[in-house]
Amino acid sequence: MQTYTPPLRDMKFVLTELHDFTRITKLEAFSEIDAETMETVLEEAGKFVSEVLLPLNVVGDREGCHLENGVVRTPAGFREAYAGFCEAGWASVTGSPDYGGQGLPESIGMLISEMICSTNLSFGLYPGLTNGAMTALRKYGSEELKSLYMPKMITGTWSASMCLTEAQCGTDLGLVRTRAVPAGDGTWNVTGSKIFISAGEHDLTENIIHMVLARLPDAPAGIRGISLFLVPKFLPRADGGVGPRNGVVCTALEHKMGIKGSATCQLSFDDAKAWLVGQPHKGMQAMFAMMNSERLGVGIQGLGIAEVSRQSAVAYAKDRLQGRSLAGTRYPKLPADPIIVHPDVRRMLMTMRVIAEGCRALGTWVTNELDIAEHSRNNEECRNAEDFVALMTPVVKALFTDLGSEAASLAVQTYGGHGYIVDHGVEQYARDSRITMIYEGTNGIQALDLVGRKLPAHMGRNLRGLFHPVAGFIEQHKTHPALGKMTEELERAFGALQLATGQIAQKGMADPEEAAAAATDYLRLTGLVAQAYLWARTAKIALSKADTEGPDKAFYAAKLTSAQFFYDRILPDTAALWLKIKSGKASMMSLPEEVF
Amino acid sequence: MQTYTPPLRDMKFVLTELHDFTRITKLEAFSEIDAETMETVLEEAGKFVSEVLLPLNVVGDREGCHLENGVVRTPAGFREAYAGFCEAGWASVTGSPDYGGQGLPESIGMLISEMICSTNLSFGLYPGLTNGAMTALRKYGSEELKSLYMPKMITGTWSASMCLTEAQCGTDLGLVRTRAVPAGDGTWNVTGSKIFISAGEHDLTENIIHMVLARLPDAPAGIRGISLFLVPKFLPRADGGVGPRNGVVCTALEHKMGIKGSATCQLSFDDAKAWLVGQPHKGMQAMFAMMNSERLGVGIQGLGIAEVSRQSAVAYAKDRLQGRSLAGTRYPKLPADPIIVHPDVRRMLMTMRVIAEGCRALGTWVTNELDIAEHSRNNEECRNAEDFVALMTPVVKALFTDLGSEAASLAVQTYGGHGYIVDHGVEQYARDSRITMIYEGTNGIQALDLVGRKLPAHMGRNLRGLFHPVAGFIEQHKTHPALGKMTEELERAFGALQLATGQIAQKGMADPEEAAAAATDYLRLTGLVAQAYLWARTAKIALSKADTEGPDKAFYAAKLTSAQFFYDRILPDTAALWLKIKSGKASMMSLPEEVF
Repeated sequence: MQTYTPPLRDMKFVLTELHDFTRITKLEAFSEIDAETMETVLEEAGKFVSEVLLPLNVVGDREGCHLENGVVRTPAGFREAYAGFCEAGWASVTGSPDYGGQGLPESIGMLISEMICSTNLSFGLYPGLTNGAMTALRKYGSEELKSLYMPKMITGTWSASMCLTEAQCGTDLGLVRTRAVPAGDGTWNVTGSKIFISAGEHDLTENIIHMVLARLPDAPAGIRGISLFLVPKFLPRADGGVGPRNGVVCTALEHKMGIKGSATCQLSFDDAKAWLVGQPHKGMQAMFAMMNSERLGVGIQGLGIAEVSRQSAVAYAKDRLQGRSLAGTRYPKLPADPIIVHPDVRRMLMTMRVIAEGCRALGTWVTNELDIAEHSRNNEECRNAEDFVALMTPVVKALFTDLGSEAASLAVQTYGGHGYIVDHGVEQYARDSRITMIYEGTNGIQALDLVGRKLPAHMGRNLRGLFHPVAGFIEQHKTHPALGKMTEELERAFGALQLATGQIAQKGMADPEEAAAAATDYLRLTGLVAQAYLWARTAKIALSKADTEGPDKAFYAAKLTSAQFFYDRILPDTAALWLKIKSGKASMMSLPEEVF
Repeated sequence: MQTYTPPLRDMKFVLTELHDFTRITKLEAFSEIDAETMETVLEEAGKFVSEVLLPLNVVGDREGCHLENGVVRTPAGFREAYAGFCEAGWASVTGSPDYGGQGLPESIGMLISEMICSTNLSFGLYPGLTNGAMTALRKYGSEELKSLYMPKMITGTWSASMCLTEAQCGTDLGLVRTRAVPAGDGTWNVTGSKIFISAGEHDLTENIIHMVLARLPDAPAGIRGISLFLVPKFLPRADGGVGPRNGVVCTALEHKMGIKGSATCQLSFDDAKAWLVGQPHKGMQAMFAMMNSERLGVGIQGLGIAEVSRQSAVAYAKDRLQGRSLAGTRYPKLPADPIIVHPDVRRMLMTMRVIAEGCRALGTWVTNELDIAEHSRNNEECRNAEDFVALMTPVVKALFTDLGSEAASLAVQTYGGHGYIVDHGVEQYARDSRITMIYEGTNGIQALDLVGRKLPAHMGRNLRGLFHPVAGFIEQHKTHPALGKMTEELERAFGALQLATGQIAQKGMADPEEAAAAATDYLRLTGLVAQAYLWARTAKIALSKADTEGPDKAFYAAKLTSAQFFYDRILPDTAALWLKIKSGKASMMSLPEEVF
């Protein structure tokens, strides 16, 4: 069964115990916010997703979207759910108050997103894409465009899509063929075909705002000749209503492995009226603003899937009776023991647990810094936070989605044959989550972003936000009576990361293929060291709460066990990752193409 | 695109160069067979699967099976393909000549199976299940049953199903409720419901022979009270034709994540006429005979999926133009370079390559020994071969299917967004292969079989067939000028395996949960060491062929590169696996159930 209870206790833990939420509430933008308010917001969001989105998840998968005469019909119930979503204010939670948003921190927005993705990933893409589009518009749009579009987008009345991919280009946007010609009135006419456009057409909102990459007539070839345009489905009237239909139609829906409730569209633009966002030929800059926000969001999708996979697997493992405990029959009155008694089932459940909790802890760290980066008045603090977010964005995207897919697969495995049939709904998680490793830049591209841009930027300065606290923790806890052993293992893993960083910096300078050959393993190594550091800090907190009484006693005890499980069963991978990186590019690159 | 060319050159390599095919042809049963005949057989099989089965793979997935009035209709083309399959003799390739089979070695049968699974996994299940059923019948059936059923089954005229699972029991067959009562004439009447029955009902054959686990009235509780029955769909007439319908009907088809062309049935038995196979209450013994054969077969499914995933990914990576080589533009006349130039794409292609070739090499070793075990007249050789097959059966099943699923996922990743839509057919591989990690005993159960039965059996004697040749190779090649470094790494991995084996033997004796907690990692470690040994031998052969001219020159050079890639990028996992095993069960088992 698709089972979900909002993990509010753990969210509170990562927000206010593991990380310092007062750093956020001290920011002027969030001066009216406190931890208690946030708990209430999360509680309410948890109710909404559980009651409204969760029951629609299977519906969306079974029914899918349908295209009839250019109109896309979303699955039954999605319209009402979306209306309720906007009405309750969930679309505008983190939106800027300048345009009618509620201005809550991204740290909270992320946790709400997690809950949305746990309960209905397909649904989440409709409001999700709007967030990315707003990021680009806010940073690069003219005041006129902003004041016309932002208020509608923030409330969810209008949604958005990101139109980048074309049949001949996905990763390599330099190959974009869609073109824009001046209309003579300061606007542009856009013509071309786009594919794989999430929420490109649907029946949830009265208007859809397409953010479209296209080429001007005088554009230089390649990536330096791309511009970003805003193309509304309906041309807005000055009074804020919608006017005539613009020249963009949905020509087909993609048939996909999963996220079937999400309308993935082929769009055809035919002299569509368009407004330039940012400077001509500088579209990639605006695109990256949009994309970086989306990448964090996709990482959180991985977390969401991991959490619901974990919960669904736990429910089955407690319910399904099969075999007897190797330590002796546990439930003699039952025909067999529940499978949660078996070590290999435990291995899967504990793995899913540390995936979900570890990603939540790391994701919150990153969104904390994002809030600082966006709202701190202290330049140095701001810059440090920006550095850290830049470094960790590809890590969050790729690591969380890899692990989210792994958790979904483990949930299927926990169910055995019952996981492979559609009845219990867990195979849907495996299918839905598979796209997260691909879209908004494949995980291989994330790894290249990490080693090719984020590491060398500012002479490696980005690394400080991660390396300094890890090194500091190791220094302080090496001889800690209870944490000494864990710290030693952290030090070993951190040492591997430092060696790998050095190798990439040295060899990669002379030969970029050496850096690229190390990229995927290096990203995983970075992510695991960051999580290991957070697990060590979690263990420290749990130890300090050893005398807690009441329901929290079990919570902290479980944190300590989970931390140890991470060190026992996940962290050892760092040793292998370093050996792989060390081996270099030779055996990866030397086979002639024609021999493959 | 689903692309497939039979990997005949590599099959020849593993059969006759890596392993010693003359060991097989020296057996009396195969005295009329030589390597050239085998090459011709494989070539013909390759043609059949490419021409007939491959085009039906997508059809099967899109169309699925349909149940109407108790009749299951297979996808369009499956009937004709199955008829052609039997007519060409592919159903009877490895069947015993005593019953009209062609009596070819299992070593060849495995490679044909691989090709079937590469091109159409769903189709392969129809003849595949018959093989398992024949194994049980041959070993435990009465002469009367064998002479009546075997000839029809060997030719594929009749097919078979294995009816084990019920709603309340999968792994734990002690919970079987289906019951059998004596009919008074030496036959039995079977009543009960079975689920997840592959090929349980379909329109390919004139009869279906169900091998059914059920309980006699006086059966002891649990696993020691299970008997195996043969229940034909139609009662056979003495003249070999089919008579009246028996009391078994298909009540529903399962809706699954993949293998949609395979009819997975719910079957209801209502006083169905049945014949006992083997002794009363000894059904598990017969079931295991059937199951062990199936387990090797499922492992080969993983290999088949890995090979076709690899080929499909390579085709796309050569065709898809995106970005430029980091080493400088490679194809200046094209708008971009093919993605095969990118290191991270290479990483995926090389990984798929060593998965497919490594599993083929190991699978052939095991089926070689299976042929020896079944046909050698030398008792000691026979026993040694049996030991090795017993040890490696769970390894082949779990390792190959884990790796096959990984390869399918890597193929999807290579295609990026185009892999997630159904058009190219690679997401089907990811969905189809997911079941292989589950059915015929989940991979967790395989790991328990390895540490719980196969290791302790005969005081650890089973290990010799693996440990002795590995130790011997290390001893001989430690100081080898070209292989010394590889051998050193093999020695390190083998050392980890020995330590892990020691720990499981010691700790597991006192506490079976300790063995179970190590099981999955131990199985992987065993499999990787076995593959590492074969890759080292492969490298040695390739080195000895360095002077080869002609098309084989590139073949051997590629083998050397692939071996090195395995050592660079896969073998390091053995270090992590040992660390994980060493950590023991504590953090896996200590969380109280209610806290999950």
